[in-house]
Amino acid sequence: MSADCTLCKLVAGELERSLVYVDERVVALMDIQPVVRGHLLVVSRRHAPYLADLDPDDGAAMFEVGRHAAAALRASGLRCEGVNLFLADGEAAGQEIFHVHLHVIPRYDGDGFGLRFPPDYSIRPREELDAAAEAIRGAWR
Amino acid sequence: MSADCTLCKLVAGELERSLVYVDERVVALMDIQPVVRGHLLVVSRRHAPYLADLDPDDGAAMFEVGRHAAAALRASGLRCEGVNLFLADGEAAGQEIFHVHLHVIPRYDGDGFGLRFPPDYSIRPREELDAAAEAIRGAWR
Repeated sequence: MSADCTLCKLVAGELERSLVYVDERVVALMDIQPVVRGHLLVVSRRHAPYLADLDPDDGAAMFEVGRHAAAALRASGLRCEGVNLFLADGEAAGQEIFHVHLHVIPRYDGDGFGLRFPPDYSIRPREELDAAAEAIRGAWR
Repeated sequence: MSADCTLCKLVAGELERSLVYVDERVVALMDIQPVVRGHLLVVSRRHAPYLADLDPDDGAAMFEVGRHAAAALRASGLRCEGVNLFLADGEAAGQEIFHVHLHVIPRYDGDGFGLRFPPDYSIRPREELDAAAEAIRGAWR
């Protein structure tokens, strides 16, 4: 646990929270500022600021709990025709709380939430894709 | 493998692809239409249209490979100051290919990609969050 971390305090029950699920590795609770009603967070209990710090088994548990949360949202009676999983790793990716968390967001037509694409968003030539793949393969550990 | 599935064909090497990583459960390859250069997909080898159809161990492997892909992107020399993981489950959530896949998207300031929020996006009263949590807990399996 990290003393200054809001998510650590929420996991520990030191701040008010709306709890959905708890096990030995993860906690799921409602996002206080939902992008769509029902938006929840799956949080590793152990403090890990970034994906690179996350215990692999905690990560696997987060994804599995996210999968269960998606199914529960679909069956909950809340409006939910689809689900997004979203994770922001790093400030440039939109991360605001530096303790790894997976967003689980119920979706329906006209919910107002979505992605914003850059102006040059387009299918790319194979050579460009191959060059990117080669750069990533070269850095894979 | 599903006969009509583009991702199954890509996994099997029956369509042109820019491959990043392969193991017994998952394949990682470049998205042909990247939202940011370096955008890749982590795909379960086994055909599963939706999250609910996904083998839990395949899901855990997808997340772990996504974590490695994020680290590789950060070390690749491609522009990458942060990473988003994104998954769309269902058409209302933006799913376009009905074979589960996890997007791994490198991010940097000014990349033009991001989230679009609804006009009423705001912190919600505790009673509303508690009611949503109760509905989801009641549907948890």
